[in-house]
Formats: sequence, structure tokens, C-alpha cells
Amino acid sequence: MTLGAMQDWPLRVTHLIDHAGREYGQREIVSRWADGSETRTNWAGIRHDALRMSQALHSAGVGKGDRVATLAMNHARHLVTWYGAVGVGGVLHTINPRLFDEQLTYIVNHAEDRVMLYDAVFQPIIDRLCDQWPTVGLYVCFDPPPGSDVLSFEEWIGAYDGNTAWADGDERDPCMLCYTSGTTGHPKGVLYEHRSTVLHAMAAVQPNLFNFDSRAVMLSVVPMYHAASWGLPWAGAIPGIKFVCSAVNDPAVLCDLMRREGVTHSAGVPTVWLAMFAQLDSDGKDVRDLGALTTAVIGGSACPRFMIERLMNNGVRVAHLWGMTETSPVGTAGAYPWNWEEMSFSEQVDLVSRQGRSAFGVELRCVDLDDPTKALPRDGVTSGALQVRGPWVIKRYFKAEADCTDPDQWFDTGDVATIHPDGTLQLTDRTKDVIKSGGEWISSVELENAAVGHPAVAEAAAIGIYHPRWDERPILVIVRKEGADCCAEDIKAHLVGKVAKWWLPDAVEFVDDIPHTGTGKISKKDLRERFKDYKLAD
Amino acid sequence: MTLGAMQDWPLRVTHLIDHAGREYGQREIVSRWADGSETRTNWAGIRHDALRMSQALHSAGVGKGDRVATLAMNHARHLVTWYGAVGVGGVLHTINPRLFDEQLTYIVNHAEDRVMLYDAVFQPIIDRLCDQWPTVGLYVCFDPPPGSDVLSFEEWIGAYDGNTAWADGDERDPCMLCYTSGTTGHPKGVLYEHRSTVLHAMAAVQPNLFNFDSRAVMLSVVPMYHAASWGLPWAGAIPGIKFVCSAVNDPAVLCDLMRREGVTHSAGVPTVWLAMFAQLDSDGKDVRDLGALTTAVIGGSACPRFMIERLMNNGVRVAHLWGMTETSPVGTAGAYPWNWEEMSFSEQVDLVSRQGRSAFGVELRCVDLDDPTKALPRDGVTSGALQVRGPWVIKRYFKAEADCTDPDQWFDTGDVATIHPDGTLQLTDRTKDVIKSGGEWISSVELENAAVGHPAVAEAAAIGIYHPRWDERPILVIVRKEGADCCAEDIKAHLVGKVAKWWLPDAVEFVDDIPHTGTGKISKKDLRERFKDYKLAD
Repeated sequence: MTLGAMQDWPLRVTHLIDHAGREYGQREIVSRWADGSETRTNWAGIRHDALRMSQALHSAGVGKGDRVATLAMNHARHLVTWYGAVGVGGVLHTINPRLFDEQLTYIVNHAEDRVMLYDAVFQPIIDRLCDQWPTVGLYVCFDPPPGSDVLSFEEWIGAYDGNTAWADGDERDPCMLCYTSGTTGHPKGVLYEHRSTVLHAMAAVQPNLFNFDSRAVMLSVVPMYHAASWGLPWAGAIPGIKFVCSAVNDPAVLCDLMRREGVTHSAGVPTVWLAMFAQLDSDGKDVRDLGALTTAVIGGSACPRFMIERLMNNGVRVAHLWGMTETSPVGTAGAYPWNWEEMSFSEQVDLVSRQGRSAFGVELRCVDLDDPTKALPRDGVTSGALQVRGPWVIKRYFKAEADCTDPDQWFDTGDVATIHPDGTLQLTDRTKDVIKSGGEWISSVELENAAVGHPAVAEAAAIGIYHPRWDERPILVIVRKEGADCCAEDIKAHLVGKVAKWWLPDAVEFVDDIPHTGTGKISKKDLRERFKDYKLAD
Repeated sequence: MTLGAMQDWPLRVTHLIDHAGREYGQREIVSRWADGSETRTNWAGIRHDALRMSQALHSAGVGKGDRVATLAMNHARHLVTWYGAVGVGGVLHTINPRLFDEQLTYIVNHAEDRVMLYDAVFQPIIDRLCDQWPTVGLYVCFDPPPGSDVLSFEEWIGAYDGNTAWADGDERDPCMLCYTSGTTGHPKGVLYEHRSTVLHAMAAVQPNLFNFDSRAVMLSVVPMYHAASWGLPWAGAIPGIKFVCSAVNDPAVLCDLMRREGVTHSAGVPTVWLAMFAQLDSDGKDVRDLGALTTAVIGGSACPRFMIERLMNNGVRVAHLWGMTETSPVGTAGAYPWNWEEMSFSEQVDLVSRQGRSAFGVELRCVDLDDPTKALPRDGVTSGALQVRGPWVIKRYFKAEADCTDPDQWFDTGDVATIHPDGTLQLTDRTKDVIKSGGEWISSVELENAAVGHPAVAEAAAIGIYHPRWDERPILVIVRKEGADCCAEDIKAHLVGKVAKWWLPDAVEFVDDIPHTGTGKISKKDLRERFKDYKLAD
């Protein structure tokens, strides 16, 4: 017999949009479309349209557990789709349109998507692949050009009045599916649950993470198809933040939106800021001229030191984020430590250069690369395989037959990292890419970072090459900058003092291009394949 | 068959202390004791001591579901007890030492407390009542005076090494029991669950609520025995804030601690700030001289306008909090609205004077006082009975035989309120105290607030008196300030223009004292009893 109880209130994603619609109904959602037009709605409008969309899906026979796919950039109709697909009890499946055709075909079939919602700019993908997507019975275009005969989103939901209720269900029901851009094998699906998504959202708004109060204005340059868009479309509903969405990533457009809309928070990968800096430079402006910006959350890859310095010098808090599709995705974020004010600027930049601290709900540990049962000390020196655990960390991939965690539920991230005594995480490499030489590990990422500091280097990749005595030795593969010149000895000389002596590469090879994956990362797998017959001198 | 899954990670309170101990282990917890001494520990120390305490409890045969009671003020050993009691699988039961003996006897027996931990200052209560508490088999004193023969807390846990694991269990297991200071009948117990407590903590740290990042330094003047101390001992663990605890509420001590310890956040009822203001005035100082204070969270009763103005004029954010023991307790908090910067100071104070906005996880509605099935509009005018719903709202009182919610799980708070179009809550009265006159409702609280604005009035209470024509009419019962003089006509004249004309009291009675409950609130029940034979002129 129960002695007393608190209420039953399943952690369903629909509570998020109900809350935003009710408590922050008038707060704006701004969309800047590919054709340059702008539209405005608000949280009440998003909710109403999501209810209408859930009616439209229901009429189309789409219901509990059915996958609803999108191929789209960031805009309010895409946001409606997130809540509308989930609201009918379905599973939102955001697809990265930059993937190769064979991956797109695999993913849609593996997910058994029932509906495909897409931006007009991706019509060629639809035309090219729809015959290979037998499960998709309905195509809806978010922004059909005038005179087009495809089904328009506004027309589709326009037939409904929104007078319906969200589908009920358990908090462990799935709500979203994202495929990882694995570098080997088929893409793998991560199936988020209502519960994991709501808990992740409640964490994301905290001061140590995105720090969203109801005054926040977010321009996210994280595509809504990428890693659940860092969970922002869910988290933003909690304090009802103003979202500014852009369907194009042109830096001139982004700078203009930041200024005009009073953007306080931005989120994106470092390359976005590279482009923004170039734009600001050509305009004779700096970051502080963007107006209200207080916070730049940067993740996806390591944020260069000069970028952190420039943003901080302009009064912007830089929060380095680490996570992955498998972690919903936020694992750590750059939080202010308690002694922040006592640190020198240089110490602050050192700290911000790391990947932040674990959110409450994410447990981190590093284990020995050779012996994953051996947990490593948090000494800021010893690096090993990074493992995570928590309520928004994956347990089992979509349609997999076994869990992807160890018996204690630790998930191996594939990252190599060290944890400092103060709890901050510092990534050093990917497990697959780290180079083993004479029984010791060399970080390919640190070699690359040191190499790109040379003024003639556009891009650098370090890989391990078989060596009869040392097992592996590193070589550097380099693309020179347009018109620049340098030789192997220049690069080696540049590295001296920046990395341990025994890390210095045995060879430097210059190439015209380095292979990339569908998501723009260096494909070490393809590079290793290209250099598989490479021979080092003894 | 499951298609994929995120991890199982029950929302257990022990995750909070594990997180704080691991990620913020060195962050200080300062205790200022009743004897004037100060001690310092940190989150790692709290965790270690809580583990040792859970071993001590286990050795004493205390385990899953057993109630562990405290009669204590705010200090680090009390904080250890919160986590230690829960850590062994028990239920922490914080008791208000200000209650009357008969209530203390009832509560301890009703809770069937197994252990009693107490401050030396409450030894007389123990000596007086221990014979009436047959279930309590172990008494432990947090701070025994030298030479005392009672069991000391440090000695008790000192026999253990902390080398143990927390008790496992379900997230819906109970973790804490608090009794409400009901004005009628026996006190009722609210049984918090691990899940409700963790969700409440995740909400509390958000920018719209307590706004805790890891730099926060909190001096809470909310007693740890009162309404779960607003959840602060749990929430503070998430970003590992520095806690400054004082076992005495002397304003000179509090001001001194604020200055010396760099306090950024305070929490307490309005009367605490009244005493602080008096202290600052006598020192020739103002709030800004306290140093680092940025945030004053005020709840428990309505915060007077002059208090809000003085704090805001000193650069302090005032967040008005509403909640009750039955809501864990945070229901709403004064969040900055998006247009805060555009409001005048006077408009800002108006807004802050309301009770804030609902946290994500708390649904609010007002219903007609005469017809609870009729939901009222959010127009800022219509007032009615306030109902709430959510994962940290009560469903059933401890040992009750039925739920205390309606079929849709709405819990009636006993408050009368209006909700504004922007979602802010404004309390107007208690359901029991509102006065019905000619079919319309008069707010006793608004009458009292207007009356205490008269310079000669120390305290005022409005109650309804039977009236043959109007059903009820209000009278005001007033305690004059020491040495001040005023008559009934003075009071009535003062009220004109401040309340509706038909709200003006039919009579004003002057008394030497107004009865109070064990928690210091005006006891309208006793007042009504005292005036039960009072006759009004027709």
C-alpha cells in the first residue's frame, strides 16, 4: 500500500509546447526564408499549427510510433513539425540533406518513414530518390514556389482547426529519431524518448548550460537536422525564448538578423563564427556591434583559441559544448567556475578552450584505452576513452539487437579525453584516430592543431602508418593554402616545441584535397585507405 | 519489442549529492553556529559524512522507508542528514520546532519516526516530549555542549568510514516527509518522492527561478524545517553552489555573513528583510553595502512594495515566489519578462509585486469559488480558487485513504488568486478567509494590506461577520503601534480610495493582540472564534 504520493505527470514533450503556448504565447518566432522573405509567428501560433498538423497526420493514417521525416533547414514550419509529429504520437525523424544519396536511401528505408516534409530547395533530392523510398506515402513541401503542384504545408494543415488533443502515452515512448554520421558502416539511428528529451531540455536551460531566461533571443545556426539541433527547439519552450531562424547560413544575413532582432544567444559550430568574423571585418565592425549578444555556445568541433579570445574581448560569454547524437546531444558545457572573476584573461581562455563540465544527469569517466575496466584519475594529464552514462544517453540503437553499453551502462563515446581535477573535460582525439607508437598514444588532433598554426597550411590530417619497430608512427597530410608554399622540413620545424619530440611526424605529405564525410568532417577512414600502402623508412 | 532505448537512470536524490561531490567537491559549505563559532566543509565533505551517517543508520537498523526526524536550524550537519537519511533508503522528516507540544507529539507519532536528530537549543523539547514518542529509539544531538552526556552527531558518524553505497530503489520511492501547518484539524504530512524532488531541483536552478550557476553563494534564511527549505538543499547540489548557513536569524549576523562570504543569493520571508533593513539603517548602510548580493528570493507571504523598491534600487533582482508544502514547494517565481527593459520602474515593481510565473512542470488555473468545474479567464481581474497540477504537486497526503485531487488531478491550493494575461499569478486571499458579501467576494488580505499602511497600525486582520442582509460583512481587527493612537474613523478614512467602497469594513475593533499559529501566521480561525458573538448594526 502506498503511504502517500506526488502526482503522476509523465514527462511528455507535448507538455513543453503546452507550457510555451500558454505561458509565453505571444513571444515571437521569426523565420528568414531562403527567398529573403521573413515571417513571424509566436509560441501560441506554433502550438496551434502543431495541433492542426497532428490532425492532418491523423487523417493520413499516421499515428503512434510512426516515423515522420523532414529534409529541411531552420524555420517556423519545421518547428511546428517537431511538435506536430510528436503530438500525434509519432516519431520525428530529422534527416541531414547533406548526406550522400546511398545514405539517404538507407536511412529512409531503415526508419520506414511514412511522411516526408521538405524544403523546396531539396526538391531535387525528392525527385531523385522518391522511387527508392517505398514506405513514404505522403510528401509535403514547406515552401513550394508559386505555381508548383506539390502539396504545400500551409495548405495541408490549413484544412484543420486545431481542435484536438495530443496523443497520450508513456514517458518512455519514442519521440525522435536521428541517425549518426558514422564513419564506418551504415548510419545508426538514435531513438530519443519523451522522458529523455524533457529531462535534457530541463538541463539545457540552466545557467551552467544555455542559460535561458524568458528574455533570451536565440539565433541557432545548428541545423534542425543535426543532432536534434542541440535540443534547442525543445529547451527553448521552457522559458518561452524568442527564436530567430534562418533557412540560409549566409553570414551577412546572420549578422543582419542578430542586429535587427536583438539576438542574445547564438549556437553553432566554429566555422560559423569564422564566416561571421570575415563578414564583420569586411563591414569594418566587430562582434560587439551585433548589439545584444551575450552568449555564444560553440560545439561540434574544438573552438580555436583566437575565436574564444575575440568573442570574450567583445563581452560575449563563450560556452564550449561537447556532446554527440547519442547523448541527445548535450553532455558537457562551459560553465563559469566559482573563481572565474579571480582568473586572468589567459587562464579564462585556457579554461574555455576545454569542453566544459558535465551537466547534472551526465556522468563522465575516462578509461584506459587498452583496458576499459580501468578507470583513470581526473588529473588533467592521463587521457583515455571517454565513457558517459545518464538518462539522455543511448542504451540501444534503433532496431539493434543488443545494447551498446557495458554492464554498468557506460557508453563508449569513441572520444579520447582527459578530465581535469576541477571536473572540466578536455578532448584530445577520437579513439579510432589516435596513433599508437611504442606502446604510447599520440593525439592526431593535437598534431593537426599544431600544424594548421603554420601560415601556409589550409588543412591538416594526421594518421598512423604501420611501422615495424614502433607499431605505428604518425604522418601529416597537408593541403597548402592557395598560393602558399612550404616543405616538409618547414612543417616539422614549426612543430618543434609545440608537441612532444617523439610525436613529431615521420613524414609530411602534401595533397590537393583531404576527403570529407557527408557532414563535413575529415574522413580518416578514406585517408587511411588512400595511404594504406605507404611505407616509412625504418 | 523495444525498437531502441535511452538509458535507465532513476531520478534518485542520491544522484544530486554524487554529482556535487564529484564535480564541485571543493566548493565550500559554511556554518555559523548558535554559539558564534564557524565551521567550513565542502560538497565532498557533505557527501562523505552522509555516507558515514547512512552506515550509522544502517547499524541502528534503520532502512528503506523508515522515517528519520530532525528538529534543527540551518547548518552543515543538518545538510548531511538530508542526504544521509535518504541515502540509506529512509525518509527525511524535518520538524518545525516552533510548533506547539501537542502538534509535535502528534506529528512524531503519526510519522512513526525512528530517529531524532536535534540541535542542543531544542534539548528542552526532547526532555519534555521524549516519553510521548515511543517510536523514537535513537536521539542524536548535532551540537552537544561540552560535558553533555547526549550522543553527539560527530561521534555517532565518526565510527564509520563512508565506504558504502547508497540504497537503490525506484524513483517513486518516498524520500522526505513534511507536515503542513494547517489551521484546522491535525497537521497533514506531504510525502515527497525521489522523482518529484529531483525534478523540482532541476527546475529550481533555472534562470527564471533561483538562477543558480556555479558562482552562486546562497544564504538561505528559510529554515531547513520549513517546506523542504524551498528545495534549496537539493537544488544547490546541481551547480554545486556555496551555501552559507546560519543557525541563528539575528540580522547583524546575517548582514555580516553576507558581506564576508560574498553572498549573491538570499531566500526568505519578508520579515527577514524587515529586520535586515532595520539593521542596515542602524549601521548607516544600505543593501548595496552587503557586497555581492544580486538576487533576493522572497516568499511565504506577500512582499511589501517598499521592500521590493528598496532592494531593486540597490541593484538586487527580487523574485517573488509562491508555493506551499504540497507543491515541494515552488509553484511560481518572479521571472524577468521579455520586455523588462522597456518597462518603467513603477511597472517593474507592479510586476514583481505579483507572485511570478509558473515553472515548467506546474500547471495553474483559477476556478469559480462557487463552482470549481468552471475555469476562469486569465484576465488579471477575475479571481477564484487557485488549483495546481504537476509532477511535484501532491496527490495523496501521508497515510490518507483517498487522493486530495480532483479526477483531472487538480489540487486545490486553498488560495484565492487571479492570473494575468501575461501568465503572472496574483494572490488575493485564502479561500477560507475571503468574505462573501451580497453574493460578491471581498479579499481579507487586500483590506489588511490597505489598513497596515496607516502609520498607527501595527497589525490588522479582516474577518467576515454574519450579516442578516448581506450574508457577511467585513470587520477589521487592529493592533495599534506602541504609543500610537487612532480611532475607527481614522482607519475608515484611510481606506477610502484604496479599496472598493462596498469593501469598507462595517466596524473596526482595536485589540491588544491578534492570535497566531505555530508558524507565525495570523490565526483567522481563532479570531473568528473570538468574534463569533459579535453583532453588526443592520
